[in-house]
Amino acid sequence: MPDKTNRGHFFEDFQTGQTLRHAVPRTLTEGDNALYIGLTGDRSPLHCDAEFARQLGLPRETINDLLVFHTVFGKSVPDISLNAVANLGYADVRFLQPVYPGDTLRAESRVIGMRETTAGNAGVVWVHTSGFNQREQPVLTFYRWVLVNKATPDHPTGHTDAPLTPEEVAPADLRPPMGLNARAFDRTATGGRYFFEDYQPGERILHGEGMTVEEADHMTATRLYQNNARVHFDAHAMSKDARFGGRLVYGGHVISIARSLSFNGLENGLGMLAWNGGTHANPTHAGDTLYAWTDVLDTAALSDRLGALRLRLVTIKNLNPMDEEIPLRLRDERSGREAYHGNIVLDLDYWLLIPKRAA
Amino acid sequence: MPDKTNRGHFFEDFQTGQTLRHAVPRTLTEGDNALYIGLTGDRSPLHCDAEFARQLGLPRETINDLLVFHTVFGKSVPDISLNAVANLGYADVRFLQPVYPGDTLRAESRVIGMRETTAGNAGVVWVHTSGFNQREQPVLTFYRWVLVNKATPDHPTGHTDAPLTPEEVAPADLRPPMGLNARAFDRTATGGRYFFEDYQPGERILHGEGMTVEEADHMTATRLYQNNARVHFDAHAMSKDARFGGRLVYGGHVISIARSLSFNGLENGLGMLAWNGGTHANPTHAGDTLYAWTDVLDTAALSDRLGALRLRLVTIKNLNPMDEEIPLRLRDERSGREAYHGNIVLDLDYWLLIPKRAA
Amino acid sequence: MPDKTNRGHFFEDFQTGQTLRHAVPRTLTEGDNALYIGLTGDRSPLHCDAEFARQLGLPRETINDLLVFHTVFGKSVPDISLNAVANLGYADVRFLQPVYPGDTLRAESRVIGMRETTAGNAGVVWVHTSGFNQREQPVLTFYRWVLVNKATPDHPTGHTDAPLTPEEVAPADLRPPMGLNARAFDRTATGGRYFFEDYQPGERILHGEGMTVEEADHMTATRLYQNNARVHFDAHAMSKDARFGGRLVYGGHVISIARSLSFNGLENGLGMLAWNGGTHANPTHAGDTLYAWTDVLDTAALSDRLGALRLRLVTIKNLNPMDEEIPLRLRDERSGREAYHGNIVLDLDYWLLIPKRAA
Repeated sequence: MPDKTNRGHFFEDFQTGQTLRHAVPRTLTEGDNALYIGLTGDRSPLHCDAEFARQLGLPRETINDLLVFHTVFGKSVPDISLNAVANLGYADVRFLQPVYPGDTLRAESRVIGMRETTAGNAGVVWVHTSGFNQREQPVLTFYRWVLVNKATPDHPTGHTDAPLTPEEVAPADLRPPMGLNARAFDRTATGGRYFFEDYQPGERILHGEGMTVEEADHMTATRLYQNNARVHFDAHAMSKDARFGGRLVYGGHVISIARSLSFNGLENGLGMLAWNGGTHANPTHAGDTLYAWTDVLDTAALSDRLGALRLRLVTIKNLNPMDEEIPLRLRDERSGREAYHGNIVLDLDYWLLIPKRAA
Repeated sequence: MPDKTNRGHFFEDFQTGQTLRHAVPRTLTEGDNALYIGLTGDRSPLHCDAEFARQLGLPRETINDLLVFHTVFGKSVPDISLNAVANLGYADVRFLQPVYPGDTLRAESRVIGMRETTAGNAGVVWVHTSGFNQREQPVLTFYRWVLVNKATPDHPTGHTDAPLTPEEVAPADLRPPMGLNARAFDRTATGGRYFFEDYQPGERILHGEGMTVEEADHMTATRLYQNNARVHFDAHAMSKDARFGGRLVYGGHVISIARSLSFNGLENGLGMLAWNGGTHANPTHAGDTLYAWTDVLDTAALSDRLGALRLRLVTIKNLNPMDEEIPLRLRDERSGREAYHGNIVLDLDYWLLIPKRAA
Repeated sequence: MPDKTNRGHFFEDFQTGQTLRHAVPRTLTEGDNALYIGLTGDRSPLHCDAEFARQLGLPRETINDLLVFHTVFGKSVPDISLNAVANLGYADVRFLQPVYPGDTLRAESRVIGMRETTAGNAGVVWVHTSGFNQREQPVLTFYRWVLVNKATPDHPTGHTDAPLTPEEVAPADLRPPMGLNARAFDRTATGGRYFFEDYQPGERILHGEGMTVEEADHMTATRLYQNNARVHFDAHAMSKDARFGGRLVYGGHVISIARSLSFNGLENGLGMLAWNGGTHANPTHAGDTLYAWTDVLDTAALSDRLGALRLRLVTIKNLNPMDEEIPLRLRDERSGREAYHGNIVLDLDYWLLIPKRAA
C-alpha cells in the first residue's frame, strides 16, 4: 500500500528542465473579488467598478492582479514549496492578460536551476511559473527561487547550477490590457489628481494609513488562494518552533495590504504590469500593523495616453513612516554588514500602469 | 513636487454649498451579499432568497439595505471624515430604490452647514449625502454631521451656521420598492407570525440572541465597504491614544449586527424605509458582546397591503436585556445631567416596511 | 400583546409525526462558494473549477456538499436545536442532487421519535430533515437526534419512543450526480495519483496538514449558514457557563476543516455521497489546531467507471497524528469504561465518490 500523503517535494525530488503541472485549476468569481476587497480594503476601480471598466473598453471589472498572482502562486505551493525553508525572491513577474470573473486559471512551473547550499542540508530551486486561463492564454509568468530542505542532508547532490534571472522587465515588454481605451479614463472615479507626468524619479509618497493584521484575516486570504503551506495555518506546530514565533503571515498577503494602502497617493494607477523583483525582508505576524511608502524609481511612456511608473513599494511593521524617516537598511555595528531594518517586511520593485494627463 | 498623500479634509477645507463627488464607485455583487451574511448573520429573505423576491414581483434578491448604506457612507469617508473626531448624528436617511447584484453605486455630498466649536480647535460639518446607481437614480440620501479637526486651531473661521435637520421622515415620504406585490408575501419563507397589525406603540421586543465582535470581523466588514477611517484599522496608532482604548468598531457594523439580531421578533420585516435619526451612544471594541431590543414607537399604514413600523433599535454591550431591564439613560449623581447608560452603544430610530395581515 | 421573541422549542413543544417547515430559504451563490473556500481552504475541483465540472458533463462547478449540508442544517436550528443541550448524532445522511450557484434551498424536518431522559429534565428528539431546491427536488436528507431541554423539568411527559435509525447507507442507495461522465475525469486537475482500486479496507491515510481555528473564522462560517445557535456566538453568556469554556465551534465547521485537510491523500474524490453516521466526540474551541486522518472501512463499485470508498474521517485537536499514533478510544482506569480520547473531536463515517482507474 503506497503512502498516499503528499509530503511535498524535497530538494532531491526536483530535476532541472522538468515541468510540473500544478493541481486544481481555479475559477475566480465575483465572490473572490468581494472577499479580496473584504480582506485587503482594495479600492482600485478597475476591480470594483464595472462601469469604470466598461468606460475604458473592457467587458467588465477585472480580477485584482494580485488575486491572480496569489492564485497561481498558491497552485504551485504543494509541488514547489511545501518544504520550503524560505521564499528567496521573485524576478520578471509579468501580468499578461486581464482575468475576468468566471475565468479559470491553471498553473505550471518549469525547474530552471538547482544549487545545493554550502552546508549541504538544503538547496535552492529556481522555477519559472506560468498561469493560464481556460483558453490557454498565459495571464501571468514569473521566476521564483526557494530554499528547499533535502530529504537526506548528508548525501551531496552535486547541484551547482544557479541561473541568472532578469534584473528587470524592460519597458518594451510591458503589456497594458488589450483594448484599454485610456482616452475614456475618468478621474472622478478614482479621485486621483496625479497622472503619469506628475510623478518624478526620486519622489517619495507616504501612504498615510496603517492596517493591523489578524490571524483570521491572513489565514482566510491564504485559504482563498488555496495555498496550503503549513507555516501559515498550524499554530500548534509553529509554537513549538522558536525560529518562527508563531504562524507566519503569507508574504503575498503583505503585498496585498501594502498595495491597497498605496492607493492613497497612486489613485490613478490602472494595475500592476510587472514586478522587477521583490524581497520579503522580515516576517510578519498577526498583531503587526503595516504601513507603506512608495519611492518613484523610473518612468516610461508606453503610448500617447499611457505610461508606466517604476515604483519601490516598501512595507514597514509597527513604525509609521509619517512619524519618522525609516532607513531601508542598517549597518550591523559588529559585522559591518548591511541588512534590512528589522521592521521592513517587504521591498517590492514593480511597474504600475497609469494614464497620461489629458491635454 | 506636490505632496500626493490624501490626508483628508480639515474643517477649513470645507465650504457651505460645495458638492464633493466621492471617489471609487462600487459594483455590489452576489459576493458582497454572501460576505455580508457571513459577517452579520443576516437572515432577511429579501436579500438571501431569490425565489422569495421573485414571488414578490422583484427581479431577484436585493442587496441588503445596510450594505447599501455602508457602501455609500464608506465612499464619503476620505472626503468628509478622515479627520473626524466623532460622528455626531444622522437624520432623514431615506432608502429610495432597491439595489440588485450587479448595480454600481456612486456617492456625493453637499456641505449644508458649518459651525466652529466654542473651543475653536474643531468644527461641526453638516452634509447631505446621496448614493446613485449606474442609471443615476438616487438609491439613498441622508444628512450627517461630524466633528472635524481644524488644521490651524488658533485661527478662528467665524463659521456659525448650524442648519436644522429634519426631526423625522414623515410616513407620506416612505417609499416601498416599486412593483412590490405584497399580496404574494409568503410567511413560511420568513417564519414570522406577526404582521403590521400585531405591533403596538409602547411594545418592547427583546431579540434574545447575542453576538460577540472580533477584530477580524469588524475590520473585514469595514474594508468591504471600502471605508478607510484609521480608527478601525490601525492598532499601533490606536494603542497609543488613551482616549480610544484600541481600535474602534465602525458604528455601521454595530447597526448591522443589531439589525441582524432583531430578525428574531421582526421576521416579516421587508427592509428599512428610512431612519429618523441615530446615535452611536458609546464605542464598541472587539471582545464586546452585543444584544438588542426594539421599542415600537409608532405605526403607519402605507397601502391596503403594506405598513411601516417606527422602531427604536437599541443595542447594548455586555449586558443581556433578557436578564435585566437596562435603562437607556442614567442621571449623573454629581452633575445631575442625563446621559446614555455606559453599555448602550446604539440608539436608532427607523421605519421598517412590513406587510399587513392578509384578510 | 404576545411575546414575539422566538425562544426556540422545548422538549414539550415537539410532537411525533409533526412536520416543521423551516424558515428562510437560501439562494447559494458564487459568493458563498468563495467564502467557503476562504474559511476552509477546500480544494475539491468540482467546487472551484468550472472547466473540470463541464468536462465531466455538469453545467458548471457545484456548491460544496458540506456547504449544502450546513445550509440545510442551519435552517433547522431555530426550530429544532436552539435549546439543544447536545447534538447526539446523525444517520443516513444522503446527498441526492448537485446544487449549483443560483439554486435556492429550503428545509423541513419531521419529528420521528421522542424520549424523555431518566433524569426527566430533558429529552431526546429524533428528526428526519430534508433540503429541497427551488424545483422541489430533494437535495439532502438526514436523521439527526438532539438532547433538548424541557420547559418544565418536573412535569413528566411519558415520551419513551426511541426510533431505530439506519446503521448505514447501503451502496445500492448511493447516487452519483446524474449525468456525471467519469470517462472524462482528468487527474491533472486534481493532482491525485490514486483511484478507487488503490484504496483498501484497513488502510490509514494521514493528511499531514493542520489548521488552527480562530473565533472570527468559525463565527463567520456559522453565520454564513445562518445557524444562530447561541453557543457559537455569545462569549458573554458562554464565559459565565463553566461547562463550555467559552464559545463552541460549530461541529459542522470541524467537519469542513477536516474534509478540507483530507484532500491531501484523497485528491480524486468527487464528493460525499452519504454519511453512515457521525459523532462530535469532544468540543472544539478557538485556538485549537485540527489534524485529521482517514481509515478506509470498505469499498463498493458503483458502475464501470465509478466507485465509493467508505471512510472514517477522524479529527484530533492539538496532537498531530503524523507525530504519534493516537488511540481513538481510551479505557478509564477507574470506571473501566471506554470513551473517546479527549483530543478526538470528530468521528465521521461516510461514503466518498471516486473514479475507477482508467484501463
